[in-house]
Amino acid sequence: MGRPLCYCQNILIAPAATPTVSSLAIMKSDALSALGRRTEAPPISWLMATALAQPRVISLAAGFTDHESLPVDETRELFEDILRSPKLGRAALQYGTTRGDTTLRELTAERLRELDGGKSSSALYAPERLILTNGSQQLLYMVTEALCDPRDIVLVEDPSYFVYLSILQSHGIAARGVRMTEQGLDLAHLEQVLTDLRKRGKLSRLKLLYLVSYYQNPTGITTSLAQKAGALRLLRRYERDAGHPLYLLEDAAYRELRFGGRGVESALAADPKRVIYTGTYSKPFATGVRVGFGLLPKEVFIPVERIKGNHDFGSSNLLQQLLARALASGLYEKHLAALRRRYARKAGIMLEALESHFPPGVSWRMPDGGLYFWAQAPGRVSSGAKSKLFREALRNEVLYVPGELCYADDPARPKPDNEMRLSFGAAAEANIRTGIERLGKALHKLMD
Amino acid sequence: MGRPLCYCQNILIAPAATPTVSSLAIMKSDALSALGRRTEAPPISWLMATALAQPRVISLAAGFTDHESLPVDETRELFEDILRSPKLGRAALQYGTTRGDTTLRELTAERLRELDGGKSSSALYAPERLILTNGSQQLLYMVTEALCDPRDIVLVEDPSYFVYLSILQSHGIAARGVRMTEQGLDLAHLEQVLTDLRKRGKLSRLKLLYLVSYYQNPTGITTSLAQKAGALRLLRRYERDAGHPLYLLEDAAYRELRFGGRGVESALAADPKRVIYTGTYSKPFATGVRVGFGLLPKEVFIPVERIKGNHDFGSSNLLQQLLARALASGLYEKHLAALRRRYARKAGIMLEALESHFPPGVSWRMPDGGLYFWAQAPGRVSSGAKSKLFREALRNEVLYVPGELCYADDPARPKPDNEMRLSFGAAAEANIRTGIERLGKALHKLMD
Repeated sequence: MGRPLCYCQNILIAPAATPTVSSLAIMKSDALSALGRRTEAPPISWLMATALAQPRVISLAAGFTDHESLPVDETRELFEDILRSPKLGRAALQYGTTRGDTTLRELTAERLRELDGGKSSSALYAPERLILTNGSQQLLYMVTEALCDPRDIVLVEDPSYFVYLSILQSHGIAARGVRMTEQGLDLAHLEQVLTDLRKRGKLSRLKLLYLVSYYQNPTGITTSLAQKAGALRLLRRYERDAGHPLYLLEDAAYRELRFGGRGVESALAADPKRVIYTGTYSKPFATGVRVGFGLLPKEVFIPVERIKGNHDFGSSNLLQQLLARALASGLYEKHLAALRRRYARKAGIMLEALESHFPPGVSWRMPDGGLYFWAQAPGRVSSGAKSKLFREALRNEVLYVPGELCYADDPARPKPDNEMRLSFGAAAEANIRTGIERLGKALHKLMD
Repeated sequence: MGRPLCYCQNILIAPAATPTVSSLAIMKSDALSALGRRTEAPPISWLMATALAQPRVISLAAGFTDHESLPVDETRELFEDILRSPKLGRAALQYGTTRGDTTLRELTAERLRELDGGKSSSALYAPERLILTNGSQQLLYMVTEALCDPRDIVLVEDPSYFVYLSILQSHGIAARGVRMTEQGLDLAHLEQVLTDLRKRGKLSRLKLLYLVSYYQNPTGITTSLAQKAGALRLLRRYERDAGHPLYLLEDAAYRELRFGGRGVESALAADPKRVIYTGTYSKPFATGVRVGFGLLPKEVFIPVERIKGNHDFGSSNLLQQLLARALASGLYEKHLAALRRRYARKAGIMLEALESHFPPGVSWRMPDGGLYFWAQAPGRVSSGAKSKLFREALRNEVLYVPGELCYADDPARPKPDNEMRLSFGAAAEANIRTGIERLGKALHKLMD
């Protein structure tokens, strides 16, 4: 019992640790920038590290994807195709361009158009509006750099994707939460927040509404096209008072991982001029291959491409060639179909386990895709990183993402801390059952 | 003749182009941040794009590496080794950690120690101080984010690596040039610059001295260990007045591409507590594989790792596994030896061509490694992007990097514009000869 507890303390201390270097003592301060000082340890890092370091702990925390179904044979075949030709091989092993490979941008743009029903003009889905990035994460980072100054405001779902909250925190940008309904963003609350910002003269500080629109991380909720269109109309209405465009940053990282419900069109179908869309091939193909993309209005594309020039002047060309070939050959589509069936199965297993092992009073909702269940305990049960529940769960060797990590600091409401993000992505089927059983035991112990 | 001239105008216009979007007209401004507004198009992008788009133009401009020697068979073999094992394959296709693969960090740390003569304590070259990045470029970006605020000052060689100058420009950081001698950084001038900053009360704004220490981009000059140690001692002397540590950011991107002279120890051998060291596997192995690394003092490592968590929470694990296996198997070393011989040969060919075709009055120096010659025309001959020489060269279908792009804006001196960076990296041997001959003709036309 000593080890897990001790380890748990170690985890809890880690995020707050700061360097104490004696040679700095003679000087007034360290040399860090405001950003360097501000940037906190991202919660995902220590959770991931815990999962990796403690193989006996069942992690329902990490956003890792299913391990067994990773496309090893497919990748081998694709590389073989590229590298047995000296010409293709050399082209793939040389630098590409900052915005990325033309073929992959074309295939991606066409794929997006098809996902959106193929009705819209192809000009909207032009490869010239598309940039390839190191996962969609880098696109989120660069868009934020391009649009937001310190003390600016970004609206986020309440709760939202915690690494995006870290980006905002790092840049000194205020996040303001917008509540969610079962259909996604709560438009009435969005309007209330916008009105409040206008009243307080803060609207000129607002730049973005950030939306994880498909099988949201962490709640699993999908925002309908009607809600997205409604949000865009609301943003348009407040633009004049803001004095500049208000963009919807649509993070569609989980879009391809649909295993239930109907496909939902992207916000591009509603008001493309104000939508910055980002997606990724990491989760649907392989997380070890970090290729994401963004489709942006021209006035945002230009600074983002320049910023990418400074970040790395282009993502790995070899990985782009791999993805282009996966898409063109049909291997991507075939792999994705299998992956969807697999996640459907794993989600079903988690649902069954939740129904069997969680005490009454804890609620959840079956998602239509993605990797997560979002479980809500009664308000009196704290699930935070320092809570009895989290410690008890770790003692039982199971790890979840405390819900509180997914909420922005927002003076307008206390931060809920009675929720858990539970991932069925990485854990093996047996571990999903055992993990939920262990967590159920911890919940019973605290709630009974 | 019409096409190249027209194209040339196109290039010259491109960097200055700004979006004019009619729908923004009703609003006071666009939504860009100060950084988004400030960030200029990196010169390397349009030069690279020109080279890619105009196959008849011989590019002596791009920092692309030798195309024929890219390790196609080696990469195929390495991937085959990884991907024929389901276990290794899956591990490589899954997310890694933010700081990167343990084995590759260990191999990299050990390799650095050996390159530095193997004498120093292994604690200095501990994998815990090492972070893996998307090329060394990303490390440069993140270190700058971690240490520098807008209006801070970074000392750079005069001239320096233009993409780093773009990073500084983008962040509103002032670059101040330090002259170079044949042994690298001019220490007398460094002291003069430091004294001047102190006199003007600006020393608290200084954070970094950025040094491309091996076969510098663009001059080909290597800074000796004695100069690096001298620079570090000088920085230490001014730290008390600065009120914080002053770091040497050593960019060793070209270190492995040595084909003459003796190996030079890194600045880590002089004063590791103040050295941020960065290197890359992109140039020595394959530029399509973007894996670089940084070795940092702990107090800088911590914020940089956190920033990387926000950028992308870790570089592609698959590429890291590729490099780890290349190093462990000896394939990397074998490839590198062949690559060095190849660059020695290509540098020799460029030297011969320069001697045959360039007019008297233009000078250059044979480098000991890297990818570049730096040719200096007499002061009256302008080589800039808008110069007669650049246009004449493009008309002759040859491209070089105008020297002026490698100089920071610095009120302390006018920007020299009579120099050319000439790369023998990417061009085929025959094209090096023809390219230099064409450029020689343009120079003769203007100088005779």
